Amino acid sequence: MDKIDHIGIAVNSLATSVPLYSAVLGENPCGEETVPTEGVRVAFFGEGTGRIELLEPIDPDSAVARFIGQRGPGLHHICVIVPDVSVALERARAEGLEAVPPGIRRGTGGRAVAFLHPRHTAGVLIELAESPRQSAEHRIPPGC
Amino acid sequence: MDKIDHIGIAVNSLATSVPLYSAVLGENPCGEETVPTEGVRVAFFGEGTGRIELLEPIDPDSAVARFIGQRGPGLHHICVIVPDVSVALERARAEGLEAVPPGIRRGTGGRAVAFLHPRHTAGVLIELAESPRQSAEHRIPPGC
Repeated sequence: MDKIDHIGIAVNSLATSVPLYSAVLGENPCGEETVPTEGVRVAFFGEGTGRIELLEPIDPDSAVARFIGQRGPGLHHICVIVPDVSVALERARAEGLEAVPPGIRRGTGGRAVAFLHPRHTAGVLIELAESPRQSAEHRIPPGC
Repeated sequence: MDKIDHIGIAVNSLATSVPLYSAVLGENPCGEETVPTEGVRVAFFGEGTGRIELLEPIDPDSAVARFIGQRGPGLHHICVIVPDVSVALERARAEGLEAVPPGIRRGTGGRAVAFLHPRHTAGVLIELAESPRQSAEHRIPPGC
């Protein structure tokens, strides 16, 4: 079973990093999307599960801009697949973990997601998201 | 197509981090393995592609021990799937990227892999590995 929906990599510039990752992966990204609520523009490589998401901050006050300012570009978060975000969040809370910001949000494609802060999870920002099979609205367009 | 074979997360202690990730993911790891050449003990969650690998250093001079010493525990590397590591490495070299250490090595399960240093890839340590379908010896034991 795939555990990873995607990983997010913070980059300074999609214009620079997309050609680099295209060369490493041997293929072009499936497309780009602006996520105004997160202050980023993103490019995805691959389709379905196991995708790679490059995130360029378009807002200097965004979390991704602050991450790059503090640590430089690099691995930013992982998005793991869970059957039910509400159940997963309850299980995490039982272990003393909290979503930050609290509760369930809407991620790319309108899918329900929750984030666990790195200070609770041994240094890794974890996004919990339901299986793409349960979120038809999140599918990558055919032909990618 | 899945792009991610696994992601590696550097942790101080499997004894502490395995229960935490088991709670977040809702399942136990498939097993543990010591990789003496890398100076680590690892635990995998999931099977096939899209796995999560926790790495605990067992050698204070290992790369993972140095990583934790410099940055603390957290996301350490991504392993992306390529049809042929030799071809991918040639393509990367054409873009000015180099494998560190040079050339192709044997990773977990004896699979041929190569590593691209973060300074060449916008801050991300990238492991290139051939598709598991082409490396039968790397399969996770059935019943995981």
